[in-house]
Amino acid sequence: MKYRIEKDTLGEVRVPIDKYWGAQTERSRNNFKIGEAASMPKEIIYGFAYLKKAAAYTNCDLKILTEEKRDCIAMVCNEILEGKLDDQFPLVIWQTGSGTQSNMNVNEVIANRVQFIKGLKIGINQFINANDDVNKSQSSNDTFPTAMHIAGYKVLTEVTIPSIEKLRDTLHTKAIEFNTIVKIGRTHMMDATPITLGQEISGYVAQLNYGLKALKNSLPHLSEIALGGTAVGTGLNTPKGYAVKVAHYIAEFTGHPFITAENKFEALAAHDAIIESHGALKQLAVSLNKIVNDIRMLSSGPRSGINEIFIPENEPGSSIMPGKINPTQCEALTMVCAQVIGNDVAITVGGMQGHYELNVFKPLIASNFLQSARLLGDACLSFDLHCAQGIEPNHTRIKELLDNSLMLVTALNPKIGYYKSAEIAQTAHKNGTTLKYEAVRLGYVTPEDFDNWVKPTDMV
Amino acid sequence: MKYRIEKDTLGEVRVPIDKYWGAQTERSRNNFKIGEAASMPKEIIYGFAYLKKAAAYTNCDLKILTEEKRDCIAMVCNEILEGKLDDQFPLVIWQTGSGTQSNMNVNEVIANRVQFIKGLKIGINQFINANDDVNKSQSSNDTFPTAMHIAGYKVLTEVTIPSIEKLRDTLHTKAIEFNTIVKIGRTHMMDATPITLGQEISGYVAQLNYGLKALKNSLPHLSEIALGGTAVGTGLNTPKGYAVKVAHYIAEFTGHPFITAENKFEALAAHDAIIESHGALKQLAVSLNKIVNDIRMLSSGPRSGINEIFIPENEPGSSIMPGKINPTQCEALTMVCAQVIGNDVAITVGGMQGHYELNVFKPLIASNFLQSARLLGDACLSFDLHCAQGIEPNHTRIKELLDNSLMLVTALNPKIGYYKSAEIAQTAHKNGTTLKYEAVRLGYVTPEDFDNWVKPTDMV
Amino acid sequence: MKYRIEKDTLGEVRVPIDKYWGAQTERSRNNFKIGEAASMPKEIIYGFAYLKKAAAYTNCDLKILTEEKRDCIAMVCNEILEGKLDDQFPLVIWQTGSGTQSNMNVNEVIANRVQFIKGLKIGINQFINANDDVNKSQSSNDTFPTAMHIAGYKVLTEVTIPSIEKLRDTLHTKAIEFNTIVKIGRTHMMDATPITLGQEISGYVAQLNYGLKALKNSLPHLSEIALGGTAVGTGLNTPKGYAVKVAHYIAEFTGHPFITAENKFEALAAHDAIIESHGALKQLAVSLNKIVNDIRMLSSGPRSGINEIFIPENEPGSSIMPGKINPTQCEALTMVCAQVIGNDVAITVGGMQGHYELNVFKPLIASNFLQSARLLGDACLSFDLHCAQGIEPNHTRIKELLDNSLMLVTALNPKIGYYKSAEIAQTAHKNGTTLKYEAVRLGYVTPEDFDNWVKPTDMV
Amino acid sequence: MKYRIEKDTLGEVRVPIDKYWGAQTERSRNNFKIGEAASMPKEIIYGFAYLKKAAAYTNCDLKILTEEKRDCIAMVCNEILEGKLDDQFPLVIWQTGSGTQSNMNVNEVIANRVQFIKGLKIGINQFINANDDVNKSQSSNDTFPTAMHIAGYKVLTEVTIPSIEKLRDTLHTKAIEFNTIVKIGRTHMMDATPITLGQEISGYVAQLNYGLKALKNSLPHLSEIALGGTAVGTGLNTPKGYAVKVAHYIAEFTGHPFITAENKFEALAAHDAIIESHGALKQLAVSLNKIVNDIRMLSSGPRSGINEIFIPENEPGSSIMPGKINPTQCEALTMVCAQVIGNDVAITVGGMQGHYELNVFKPLIASNFLQSARLLGDACLSFDLHCAQGIEPNHTRIKELLDNSLMLVTALNPKIGYYKSAEIAQTAHKNGTTLKYEAVRLGYVTPEDFDNWVKPTDMV
Repeated sequence: MKYRIEKDTLGEVRVPIDKYWGAQTERSRNNFKIGEAASMPKEIIYGFAYLKKAAAYTNCDLKILTEEKRDCIAMVCNEILEGKLDDQFPLVIWQTGSGTQSNMNVNEVIANRVQFIKGLKIGINQFINANDDVNKSQSSNDTFPTAMHIAGYKVLTEVTIPSIEKLRDTLHTKAIEFNTIVKIGRTHMMDATPITLGQEISGYVAQLNYGLKALKNSLPHLSEIALGGTAVGTGLNTPKGYAVKVAHYIAEFTGHPFITAENKFEALAAHDAIIESHGALKQLAVSLNKIVNDIRMLSSGPRSGINEIFIPENEPGSSIMPGKINPTQCEALTMVCAQVIGNDVAITVGGMQGHYELNVFKPLIASNFLQSARLLGDACLSFDLHCAQGIEPNHTRIKELLDNSLMLVTALNPKIGYYKSAEIAQTAHKNGTTLKYEAVRLGYVTPEDFDNWVKPTDMV
Repeated sequence: MKYRIEKDTLGEVRVPIDKYWGAQTERSRNNFKIGEAASMPKEIIYGFAYLKKAAAYTNCDLKILTEEKRDCIAMVCNEILEGKLDDQFPLVIWQTGSGTQSNMNVNEVIANRVQFIKGLKIGINQFINANDDVNKSQSSNDTFPTAMHIAGYKVLTEVTIPSIEKLRDTLHTKAIEFNTIVKIGRTHMMDATPITLGQEISGYVAQLNYGLKALKNSLPHLSEIALGGTAVGTGLNTPKGYAVKVAHYIAEFTGHPFITAENKFEALAAHDAIIESHGALKQLAVSLNKIVNDIRMLSSGPRSGINEIFIPENEPGSSIMPGKINPTQCEALTMVCAQVIGNDVAITVGGMQGHYELNVFKPLIASNFLQSARLLGDACLSFDLHCAQGIEPNHTRIKELLDNSLMLVTALNPKIGYYKSAEIAQTAHKNGTTLKYEAVRLGYVTPEDFDNWVKPTDMV
Repeated sequence: MKYRIEKDTLGEVRVPIDKYWGAQTERSRNNFKIGEAASMPKEIIYGFAYLKKAAAYTNCDLKILTEEKRDCIAMVCNEILEGKLDDQFPLVIWQTGSGTQSNMNVNEVIANRVQFIKGLKIGINQFINANDDVNKSQSSNDTFPTAMHIAGYKVLTEVTIPSIEKLRDTLHTKAIEFNTIVKIGRTHMMDATPITLGQEISGYVAQLNYGLKALKNSLPHLSEIALGGTAVGTGLNTPKGYAVKVAHYIAEFTGHPFITAENKFEALAAHDAIIESHGALKQLAVSLNKIVNDIRMLSSGPRSGINEIFIPENEPGSSIMPGKINPTQCEALTMVCAQVIGNDVAITVGGMQGHYELNVFKPLIASNFLQSARLLGDACLSFDLHCAQGIEPNHTRIKELLDNSLMLVTALNPKIGYYKSAEIAQTAHKNGTTLKYEAVRLGYVTPEDFDNWVKPTDMV
Repeated sequence: MKYRIEKDTLGEVRVPIDKYWGAQTERSRNNFKIGEAASMPKEIIYGFAYLKKAAAYTNCDLKILTEEKRDCIAMVCNEILEGKLDDQFPLVIWQTGSGTQSNMNVNEVIANRVQFIKGLKIGINQFINANDDVNKSQSSNDTFPTAMHIAGYKVLTEVTIPSIEKLRDTLHTKAIEFNTIVKIGRTHMMDATPITLGQEISGYVAQLNYGLKALKNSLPHLSEIALGGTAVGTGLNTPKGYAVKVAHYIAEFTGHPFITAENKFEALAAHDAIIESHGALKQLAVSLNKIVNDIRMLSSGPRSGINEIFIPENEPGSSIMPGKINPTQCEALTMVCAQVIGNDVAITVGGMQGHYELNVFKPLIASNFLQSARLLGDACLSFDLHCAQGIEPNHTRIKELLDNSLMLVTALNPKIGYYKSAEIAQTAHKNGTTLKYEAVRLGYVTPEDFDNWVKPTDMV
């Protein structure tokens, strides 16, 4: 491989000649060979592209950057956002905890790419300097959290929320469609009083609605960005008016309502906005695990399970058992839920260990958050398309189980009291008979009253 | 010990003669010898007292309970709320997951206590029946979650939130008081550009404000109660209008804005409201861990630590090292934070495993939630009183460290660029000299310019 | 309430006149009103009693304590171990993270109780001094971890392990007893090839055996005690030979193989032994959750569930549904599992935050560990007695489901290949017919061959 | 893109013409668009390659597979292990929870690649069949867990353990090298009695040794493989002797001591071996977090921190603060620790939810385990090379802090008692004087005695 020499304040570094990155990126690449290369999420790089462009515009407006430099920086930022420079960001999550090295990676790539476009030598900074121009009025300490919020807000509003809403809508449709299908209810996994299939599913819809509300409640905090705080939150080396203006540009470029954070010290030293949003993602994972596990149990069988609903048959389920079909979408989604629950702890452990003016678990927190948001979104979409939309009731089975149930006896409580009702149910259970048979035999109810009082359709 | 015979639907049980509880409580006591006795939180028992009274009033209004029974039930509920019957609730958390046995414990105690007050025999239910009267229009499945929400809402609004707000107010006062005390900032635990002590503390205030907002955002969900759903959410065996009316009475009796849950199926089968609120408690634990750890580090010493602030000296710190004083309030609070973070996982694991119409991890979820809410409240109050209020700056030390710092060089960036500034700082570090000495020696700045450009008080 | 004046190095404190504790205990009682009083686990206090006695014996042997003082200290330690002084330990978990205040609580109670027995005035230390005599050759920093290991080792070996082994033995007996009962297997919750009920249960036995092995693997680390390290691990102010000798006495007094820790710096600054043991407890919680959830599903019904096994009917299951019986022991145990899993995170968060020479999350770590160990032990014993021992197969149901299964087709793979077998199963599923009918109808197998090849009893 | 038609038991599927995979892989690719493509860890694919080859050899030995087919299968397995077919495995983690689709991916690629090599048409299975030949005597349910154990065992023994041992060895060398450098100890982050730098580091070494021991204790469980259990653990459709023999081949091919699992039901339905090993990884994360955080604090500064040790300066630390150097290796490693701690919860949540004969969180569990093992290994190696090896004491600073310390007073306890010693320390603290000055002034000690009794070097 061929190299050129780049320099930073610690000295010279050999960099692959075909790459735009510079000395600091190369140092990081060599010093942090941990896990797979280029694991820093692309969403973070794109978040940087938005903010570097916004900073350039703001610096220019505030007369500390030329229009020419502004336009050059903006042009390369656009290239990054179009995915044209994806191979220029080789760094890993497991680097410095401030993400400084990824900030410098972006600075270096922009500066060198501008030099290249200008026909100048790469690595020399004749026209533009990575630190003094591209990073002007910025620090890693305020840019990285800003990139986190941009990336997080975007994936939540563009992927996660719409996907969960789509699944919620499908379930809502099913809830209405199945609202008169009376079936056995189950508590403690044991037979209970009747419920309709639609009512059961309406509970899932309510869970998702609460989760979505909690997630949306967290968006305002996430919309606050740290940019303008620079090194420690004081805004050192930024011109007057910079913070508000740069947030305005970011809002304009992304189309999302970003504003400058009220307290920059908090915005650098803590990532409670991420903690808060991920708490809502975890809540949704808890809800989805319950919902999807129910669907898996309700569709279990085909002959030795509950088997009250049918779900789509998407692929052969077994490499050894011919004809087997499995609830694979449920499995994928519950695995995602487990991952999100684990990620919540990783984020918590990172978030709680900020020190003084900076939390240095930023890349960890960012990558776990983005993974959770993306996976939940993708998996809900997949589950909706390949499972939820195809849920159908197994009418025969539902009726068979309902008719056979002993818990219909509960309808007799207000008529003959809890204790006599219990005697009827226990006797029928012991003798393997029906409630009506024992109710009449024990002399507590006439056959006519039984039929009038114990109507599953009236019990829901 | 002396016993009387009580009966339930499974037969006879011997119960201690001096207790009001009945057969089902006694069965549970014998069947669940797990951990310490009577571990079911008292707040849950009191929550039951509120709702049993509200149910009696509602049943009476709706003509299915006599006024006499209503008044008797209400009288005993009041006794429970006054703490007079605390020794009548011997059951443990680790019982049936629906809390049925604690519901029956309350039903039995109320029924037998009414019998006793009426001068009737205990355990016979001549006048009043635990299931048919006290539990009328109710199921464990809707009462236990209602008791959870009543207990949780009360502790959050009466203990947790006021305590955290008190600490937040103290820190806010300190932030204002110390707002002009310029000190060294620290990022990556390394010396950084200056900040004021007040700014640093204002970040803590912001964290608590965000956490409080998140916690309050979760209250509406928590204010929805399951009562009226009975066994599976359908409201079987409740009269028309019951659910709304009973919630109204609970609101009246507790003084909190409880309303009936929109979807009762969700309210029984899931505990996402608790998940949501506890997520906010966990967020506050994350914030407090950061804040309190900072305070511990800032006050470390007295001679070999950071030592920039003084905290109160409350007790001798060591049984072997004479004269030692430790940041013990910080330690208590960070231990509470660790507990809350662990409880969050316990609640998550319980919450995700609801099945069909019921989640049967209710007592676990309730006890962990109440512990977290209570501990955070108590610990913040303790920390506020015994530590935060007494925080004072160590002016001498703060000035000494600030004057000595190399990171003041950052102020030169806009004047001479990042690279020359770095050279100055690195040289001073290497030679153990001052920035000014090296800046002038290297010929980059005149002494006058240095003094004009590098002013810590202008850098914050 | 009446008070006497006690003194410590910070000055005078008023202490309730009827208590043996002194100034430092009282300070802690007033400074840490967090959660319920006296929450410090009794096992820790008893652990202290063992080690104070052992220290007195060792100090005496090494000629730095008189025989008279040794015998006085030992006498009070014995009283503590007999539970006679339980009301003398009012402190909470949420105190200083080194547990210094509980160490001093024990020192003060022993000193004052000795004074009292000697007929001397309490609080004056005429004969004996809490710091200089009772705490001689000790620091909180080595005594508290020693008490943790003593308490932890005892509860593991005396409660947790025997209880789990008892449940394991019961399950093993059932596995043998049911070893020829062929039933349908289930994978993905869907019907699969046959298995015997005994085989299924043997998997549970294997899980518990692995967990027990992992737990026992952790005992050697737990048997190492910190005593002799004093303040920072160097053993300052201990006589030569003290550490080994005092461990020997603790082993003798407790009957457990305690030895002195090889590296005292680790033993104070980290609690990895507890982390390690609790990791095994968590593994057992994971195993038990699976096992018990299976038992709950297998016993679900009675008419609309899987219903392949019967479990004991211990109590009425519902306050509203007459005759309902629930798997309550399963629920208690799975709630315990969730708690243990949460506690693991609390312990992890505490364990990872040691600083320099000391970890100051000791009471948190100790209380969570002891709760997990105790709860798992109690709950396994309860589950064994009230559930596992009573598990019985439902032969009728097992046979019905087995005969009906489509996955028996797997036996045809080696004869006619996976694809034709799949066709048979899929057709039977679609038509609601039997495998044999379709196998013959499709012309792939003769009726005789089918009967010879597809024998459930040969498939296990 | 060009396609060919492949078939499975559900019908025809279009597959990219340039790929060896078949119908089931393609179905999975379309049905599970969740997260990044091809996220199933390569180590799992390679684990499959080892076991497919071993199965082919065993089947041949047992006369149910021809030598020709055996050799063809083995040849392709070797190609996979050489990384030549890496682009043939496009599936994601978030698929069916049994990993069936990845098993079929391997089966299909091997079958089609064999067809190709033989010059036969791909997708027709003229010579060899993915299910009947490549998957012979296997099920996804026993192959996937086998691949998990092969992959896990290999990464632990080849990457994780050697890397941690390397770091341990470096620290051990430092502990010996620095063993006589007396410095101030710190407990509760406050000044305490002296310790040597070597002693402090020896505590780290002890932590890693315990963690390594715990990790190695888990290897025997991990060395047991499920292969031979097939669908539900009964070994249906395997020839006699198969399980033991195939494990022998896997041991031979991998060079690791794999054996057949004693209980196949456990090996399919639970992943407690992984839970167990990952528990040890989590313990190591806890240890490393403590160690590395200490190193970060000890090296903090350069002028306003603890600054007792120097660590290597690897890269510029700030994009805005010139000359800043940060403990970046510490940050990367503590972020990895947070990830491992989060992964532990993800694995726990997956592991606890096995149902009946199968746990269907296999890919989740595998991917989290392999990530933790790899990251810990890589990060320890990186930390060792770029940080630990370069740790050096700052003699000047260490001496300055030690000489100034008040906690040296502890040496006076045995001479003048705890209370007088406390008075000396408190007075010196209050007056800002030295211990000796106050000790003499208070008349408790002569200057000569003080010098004789208070010698830091005698206190360690």
